[in-house]
Amino acid sequence: MKLFSLNSNRALSEKIASEVGIPLGKAAIKQFSDGEIQVNIEESIRGAEVYVIQSISDPINDSLMELLIMVDALRRASASQINVVIPYYGYSRQDRKARSREPITAKLIANLLEDDDITRVLTLDLHAPQIQGFFDVPVDHLAAAPLLASYFSDGSFDTDNMVVVSPDHASVSRARIMAELLGTPIAIIDNRNEESAEDINEIPTEIIGNVAGKTALVIDDMIDTGTRLTISAEALSNAGATEIYGAATHAIFSNSASEILQNSKLSKVIVTDSIRIDEEKKFEKLVQLSVGPLLGNAIKMIYDNEPLAPLFKSQK
Amino acid sequence: MKLFSLNSNRALSEKIASEVGIPLGKAAIKQFSDGEIQVNIEESIRGAEVYVIQSISDPINDSLMELLIMVDALRRASASQINVVIPYYGYSRQDRKARSREPITAKLIANLLEDDDITRVLTLDLHAPQIQGFFDVPVDHLAAAPLLASYFSDGSFDTDNMVVVSPDHASVSRARIMAELLGTPIAIIDNRNEESAEDINEIPTEIIGNVAGKTALVIDDMIDTGTRLTISAEALSNAGATEIYGAATHAIFSNSASEILQNSKLSKVIVTDSIRIDEEKKFEKLVQLSVGPLLGNAIKMIYDNEPLAPLFKSQK
Amino acid sequence: MKLFSLNSNRALSEKIASEVGIPLGKAAIKQFSDGEIQVNIEESIRGAEVYVIQSISDPINDSLMELLIMVDALRRASASQINVVIPYYGYSRQDRKARSREPITAKLIANLLEDDDITRVLTLDLHAPQIQGFFDVPVDHLAAAPLLASYFSDGSFDTDNMVVVSPDHASVSRARIMAELLGTPIAIIDNRNEESAEDINEIPTEIIGNVAGKTALVIDDMIDTGTRLTISAEALSNAGATEIYGAATHAIFSNSASEILQNSKLSKVIVTDSIRIDEEKKFEKLVQLSVGPLLGNAIKMIYDNEPLAPLFKSQK
Amino acid sequence: MKLFSLNSNRALSEKIASEVGIPLGKAAIKQFSDGEIQVNIEESIRGAEVYVIQSISDPINDSLMELLIMVDALRRASASQINVVIPYYGYSRQDRKARSREPITAKLIANLLEDDDITRVLTLDLHAPQIQGFFDVPVDHLAAAPLLASYFSDGSFDTDNMVVVSPDHASVSRARIMAELLGTPIAIIDNRNEESAEDINEIPTEIIGNVAGKTALVIDDMIDTGTRLTISAEALSNAGATEIYGAATHAIFSNSASEILQNSKLSKVIVTDSIRIDEEKKFEKLVQLSVGPLLGNAIKMIYDNEPLAPLFKSQK
Amino acid sequence: MKLFSLNSNRALSEKIASEVGIPLGKAAIKQFSDGEIQVNIEESIRGAEVYVIQSISDPINDSLMELLIMVDALRRASASQINVVIPYYGYSRQDRKARSREPITAKLIANLLEDDDITRVLTLDLHAPQIQGFFDVPVDHLAAAPLLASYFSDGSFDTDNMVVVSPDHASVSRARIMAELLGTPIAIIDNRNEESAEDINEIPTEIIGNVAGKTALVIDDMIDTGTRLTISAEALSNAGATEIYGAATHAIFSNSASEILQNSKLSKVIVTDSIRIDEEKKFEKLVQLSVGPLLGNAIKMIYDNEPLAPLFKSQK
Amino acid sequence: MKLFSLNSNRALSEKIASEVGIPLGKAAIKQFSDGEIQVNIEESIRGAEVYVIQSISDPINDSLMELLIMVDALRRASASQINVVIPYYGYSRQDRKARSREPITAKLIANLLEDDDITRVLTLDLHAPQIQGFFDVPVDHLAAAPLLASYFSDGSFDTDNMVVVSPDHASVSRARIMAELLGTPIAIIDNRNEESAEDINEIPTEIIGNVAGKTALVIDDMIDTGTRLTISAEALSNAGATEIYGAATHAIFSNSASEILQNSKLSKVIVTDSIRIDEEKKFEKLVQLSVGPLLGNAIKMIYDNEPLAPLFKSQK
Repeated sequence: MKLFSLNSNRALSEKIASEVGIPLGKAAIKQFSDGEIQVNIEESIRGAEVYVIQSISDPINDSLMELLIMVDALRRASASQINVVIPYYGYSRQDRKARSREPITAKLIANLLEDDDITRVLTLDLHAPQIQGFFDVPVDHLAAAPLLASYFSDGSFDTDNMVVVSPDHASVSRARIMAELLGTPIAIIDNRNEESAEDINEIPTEIIGNVAGKTALVIDDMIDTGTRLTISAEALSNAGATEIYGAATHAIFSNSASEILQNSKLSKVIVTDSIRIDEEKKFEKLVQLSVGPLLGNAIKMIYDNEPLAPLFKSQK
Repeated sequence: MKLFSLNSNRALSEKIASEVGIPLGKAAIKQFSDGEIQVNIEESIRGAEVYVIQSISDPINDSLMELLIMVDALRRASASQINVVIPYYGYSRQDRKARSREPITAKLIANLLEDDDITRVLTLDLHAPQIQGFFDVPVDHLAAAPLLASYFSDGSFDTDNMVVVSPDHASVSRARIMAELLGTPIAIIDNRNEESAEDINEIPTEIIGNVAGKTALVIDDMIDTGTRLTISAEALSNAGATEIYGAATHAIFSNSASEILQNSKLSKVIVTDSIRIDEEKKFEKLVQLSVGPLLGNAIKMIYDNEPLAPLFKSQK
Repeated sequence: MKLFSLNSNRALSEKIASEVGIPLGKAAIKQFSDGEIQVNIEESIRGAEVYVIQSISDPINDSLMELLIMVDALRRASASQINVVIPYYGYSRQDRKARSREPITAKLIANLLEDDDITRVLTLDLHAPQIQGFFDVPVDHLAAAPLLASYFSDGSFDTDNMVVVSPDHASVSRARIMAELLGTPIAIIDNRNEESAEDINEIPTEIIGNVAGKTALVIDDMIDTGTRLTISAEALSNAGATEIYGAATHAIFSNSASEILQNSKLSKVIVTDSIRIDEEKKFEKLVQLSVGPLLGNAIKMIYDNEPLAPLFKSQK
Repeated sequence: MKLFSLNSNRALSEKIASEVGIPLGKAAIKQFSDGEIQVNIEESIRGAEVYVIQSISDPINDSLMELLIMVDALRRASASQINVVIPYYGYSRQDRKARSREPITAKLIANLLEDDDITRVLTLDLHAPQIQGFFDVPVDHLAAAPLLASYFSDGSFDTDNMVVVSPDHASVSRARIMAELLGTPIAIIDNRNEESAEDINEIPTEIIGNVAGKTALVIDDMIDTGTRLTISAEALSNAGATEIYGAATHAIFSNSASEILQNSKLSKVIVTDSIRIDEEKKFEKLVQLSVGPLLGNAIKMIYDNEPLAPLFKSQK
Repeated sequence: MKLFSLNSNRALSEKIASEVGIPLGKAAIKQFSDGEIQVNIEESIRGAEVYVIQSISDPINDSLMELLIMVDALRRASASQINVVIPYYGYSRQDRKARSREPITAKLIANLLEDDDITRVLTLDLHAPQIQGFFDVPVDHLAAAPLLASYFSDGSFDTDNMVVVSPDHASVSRARIMAELLGTPIAIIDNRNEESAEDINEIPTEIIGNVAGKTALVIDDMIDTGTRLTISAEALSNAGATEIYGAATHAIFSNSASEILQNSKLSKVIVTDSIRIDEEKKFEKLVQLSVGPLLGNAIKMIYDNEPLAPLFKSQK
Repeated sequence: MKLFSLNSNRALSEKIASEVGIPLGKAAIKQFSDGEIQVNIEESIRGAEVYVIQSISDPINDSLMELLIMVDALRRASASQINVVIPYYGYSRQDRKARSREPITAKLIANLLEDDDITRVLTLDLHAPQIQGFFDVPVDHLAAAPLLASYFSDGSFDTDNMVVVSPDHASVSRARIMAELLGTPIAIIDNRNEESAEDINEIPTEIIGNVAGKTALVIDDMIDTGTRLTISAEALSNAGATEIYGAATHAIFSNSASEILQNSKLSKVIVTDSIRIDEEKKFEKLVQLSVGPLLGNAIKMIYDNEPLAPLFKSQK
């Protein structure tokens, strides 16, 4: 078994390797001065079962090409298996044609990876679970919900007075799952005219469900610019929520997300390290939990041909 | 251009053909005494742009195999294009691995059709829009929402006092779209422990949002056994809704759905003819609207290389 | 190694499992009320070499879809090999375009299975041996002729006075093989104008070769409605055959085949259990021999990477 | 439309071109001194519907490679369609695994052609009709039987006293078709132990059916070394046939076939020009009929998107 | 016919469109704040023959992904043909495994494009002509040599006293072609130990051939950092060349290439606009010739199914 | 592990087998009288890792078809891996479209092999290293340069007074590599108007670089008709070279190459046994070195999953 990390999130790769118990393989993935990616695998992988770790995160196209080129190199170098570990699967919101003449980029990426002849995908909290079906190779799809829930269920929170909130119409199932883990009711932020609005701040926002006097936990799969979460917090505060938390698996934090979130009505923002957060993007209210042990355990179980079902149980 | 109907829904095919303005092609699709399907295309289709109409509905496996075998015959007979028109795409709820070792049958069907070398899919209200991405050939995906909305927006209903209701967590986006068309607020039926329940009747059901004193319209993409819709109506009635309607694109009506729905708290059940409803399954409260004109128009526009965008606008 | 049975012929699967010496894997393959097949594999098969047993027999399209969906589930669940064991390969008579615009459904099924990514096919007495070439994966093709011959060569029959009869022009090679096994001459039923006849009973039938005063054994690969065999027996009786037997590998027995055969001039009808025969379809003259040991042995040999050649020798 | 001839049978290509009514395209297909084939297409075919004519006949591997290389060149030069016309499809007897570890070369060739991205195959009298199913692209499969029958049905033969004879067990269907065209009965040469015989002359040969006092016509799809036909004639003569004719579509004439046939009990040997017969291989008893008009007409009909059914009717 | 430009080189696209005589299609290709590319095709392309223009140049991975995503969108929007016009094919130096475990990224890109289902590639001066063979779809491969030669052959240069110089061992054929166009002899820069050198400046450089007293024209396919060309000029100057010119098709100009070249012994550097050169990268000695007319003419000829051969002739 | 030899070069296969230390597998590859290849694998290879050795050399199309058919047979017989060892990869000069409407036969062959489902290619001195990229399966590409160099570096030659000569523009890199191995300078034969010349003897030939008074070694990848090498020797002699050697990996020796070379100005011609040289083609000046140990070692290392890098080092 060989474990390689590409460049998008080496800190997480180190944690995964530590959990698996083997060192990361030697490989240098650099860019030439004209931007071309250069792959240099510095140890033999002939006949090896290889796991390559790469989040498809910003710089997203470079991250994706690093992965595709590495897989090409591994295949030509006679790896027996090429398992790609994708903690954050970028472009996953482009998973359907919402308007005429749109691409379905999440499927395109699945095609690119499969045509490059990967053996398996191990990933975490896809934007839509149907993305599993974009692949014909096995996809092992892990969930960070138990990890995020553990932050609130460790006794320091009064979960009896909590409500889990879906920030939009499409995420209610995700909120329901978190609510089951914490034993709370749910509420939904009802954003109208979302498609046609020029500016997300102009969308009329109502809350369906009871949040007054409660601690509200807004749960999403990813935080991009932070605007949606900030607006949700504002609306929840107006509706009488006493304290507001945000939680999400994938911390994209684009533009001035960090600043917006720090200055929002949110008490804390809980995320995982599926995406590397640069030091300058970290902020006081941020809590980052590691998915390294989860992914590392999954790799061990896959290598040993054991079922992954135990990983879906609650975690401390 | 040639238009062929297989056996699942000839009445709809006739309506489509009438809208297109050409007769259905001559073809006999029968079963031998041992159950094997026999395809007999009785006119030359060499070089023709062919459209084959078939809902993948009960008997679902026979319907699917009829379609696959017909496409094989058309390809070998030198059709220049094979467009498959699938008013109801069966197996669409099997669109992800919800548990270990599940198939993703909705993707399997996409693979089977693509491997059979189809040119395009024209379909209606897929269970999840991501199923478009299961295909690499073009998918033209129509919506029946404007047609269903037209039933309520023709003046005989007081839409100012209506609320559109999502019957579960996953359908809130669909409810939001219908609410936009009718200008109403939304509510959500909150079904807990759905996954682990043995019996759908045992799921604790709460309503999030305000329905008291209102006419409630429960909107779903399909009605299968009718239980979910019946329970939803019961809960809405208990919560004070004055009148309750159900609407859905696809009327599967399996088991004793017709009886259950007729005896429910629902005033009317509005569906389309995407699936053939046998006479003995029809019931007093049922209203069936035809998607024949919608599909027929789409075929004409596709054939003429015109954009389908106009079909997404509201319809009377 | 894991062995799974689908629903078409569980009795045969039990016999195969018994020969292999391992129990059938736990899996529930059911149909939802709307006809959709639900696959539930109840034990881990990660990394396993899996053998799935399914005859593609009536209800033929359900049987085929069960197989395709099971293979999809196994592939996504990381089986290392997916060997499909198909005792009866349905649709095998649709193996060529006999008329314009016909499908070649036997090839379509091979394509569907290969696109689903099977590792190997193990099958029995294909209608035409060329169907092996419809696949690019390995096909291990067994013959039931030695088993069927063993019924006659065990000493209770005077094979010196037998003649093996081909019931039509296309089956003469099959008759010749059986004749070699039993050491007899052959005769052929010459059916004229077969293609254009509306009714098989109207086909003028002559016999080429000498059958008078002999025990005739009509050999075919399958018995469908039983009409061909019954007519053959009638013609042989008219031509002076003293006793007439029918033998075939695959007992489809559609329509009123059982009744027709029981009431025919045949003394016995010898078949295998490649297709499950419901109790109500069994009849007094029927003799059923099991191919369970043959298939079970083949699976063991394949698993052990041993050549299958010994299985082609005569069997008692 | 462009029509090109490769090297295996230019005389036939000229006849086809003459029937189609357009000249053969300019292309030089040569071999370098080391045996490599050089293709030189000397006119633009960008956007053209191209028909390439090549029998896969001796030197069979050179003929096949000429075809594959030509198709590669045409595809890269932007032909819009590449139709391959294969009057004789070599390797067609290797259409199944008769023994362990045999290739299925007839399928391999189909794969090679399809992978090279051909549009369609037009061919003549495949050894087994199932070979059509080796392809997924359309195969238009013509029959020379009406042409061969026309030689005997023009009034100079007393067909009332003829019998059509199958030279082995596998060809009885072919004999039956010819017998229908001529209105005669059939007989079969019963060759025992064919598989195990070292020398075809040692196979015990019996005749099933009545030939005494009749003119016998032995019909086969191809004549290779001529031994089978010569032995058949010997056996028929011994059985009292008064005059014996041989007929086949494909005249391979390998080894000393010409001499053997000329010295045989046969009165005439009727074949087509699907394979070029070198002058030194022609012999007095040989009658060669041209399939040029048949193939040329088929190309015209395909180009005009007309059904080919009329070509299957009897021809003078 | 529709012509679209992506973002890498809009100025060239405008020149191409002007030559073709139709305006560029309306499409917005932007990046979201997290780096994901958003494609917005603002006019219907159903049934259209589309040409998409994009150089795979810095930011190289973004440029490539723009192209792949655009092709996905075009295919799903039912374009009848998707022709990709790639003036500069990036990653083309990664065209073979020079060391163990290297990728062949130029082939990977060909695979990605073909799997995305493009119809044709139109490109210019590939680093190695074998890259044409990385594709199975048609590749129309143009050469800028006649255009570059025209700069020197217009009468203002004494080509009788010129020598064309290859800057390394691999480019001698390219130099020979340019020498033919100008009627000059050639010389070669002989760089030893190139593979093992840490720094290109440390490579011992000799000149093979006669350059003393001559005007030397160093010809390459691309100029990246400019170091090779600068060193070549230095060596030529030392060897007595009186004046030195550099010419190349593709002006990558990475790092401080502009500065290095301006300060070199070169009199002029002649390049094309296959890659966009930002204003701040332009320098006094730079001469940029446009390939817009060449590519525009090629597109017109392809669309009209005319042979491109005339474009390979010398151009003024 | 199983090692099979086909017919093109059994002597080399024996040497490889001897190095690997296992006997060649039992298989008879013959031609029927009509030229069809017959493959007969006489031992079980079920589950085996198979290596098949075949040079694609004259009779080149037969050699290629032998390989393709053998791979088909091995795949159908359930080999677990099919590694093809191709000491000489024929058609490799057809690796690009040099003129309009040319095929790229070297890529076609790669496609044919990959479609036949090979696992890996092991080959030697491809005409262009980019041909590696024609494959997507792993290609292990060995070099004979160290072996050829060893002939000159064993002390019997004064390498200080040698010059390595490239016989044309495209081979300078190859000459540079040999020069590095021997520590000599290089020179280039400058052949003008090569493309348009009717006769290679008419091409004006000049020498770039210093050869007077030196021992010249002309290095090429292959020797076909021998004309190029003979002309090179003539030119070198005229330019004052004192002694002239020719060396190449692949000895095609077509037409009267042996005679021409024997009668040339060359002192010796050093080649390998990648291609079988018939006894009548051997000549006095010929020195043949065996690549059997090199290929045998590579096979052992591949089988043991060891890196091949050591094989690229200099060899005695």
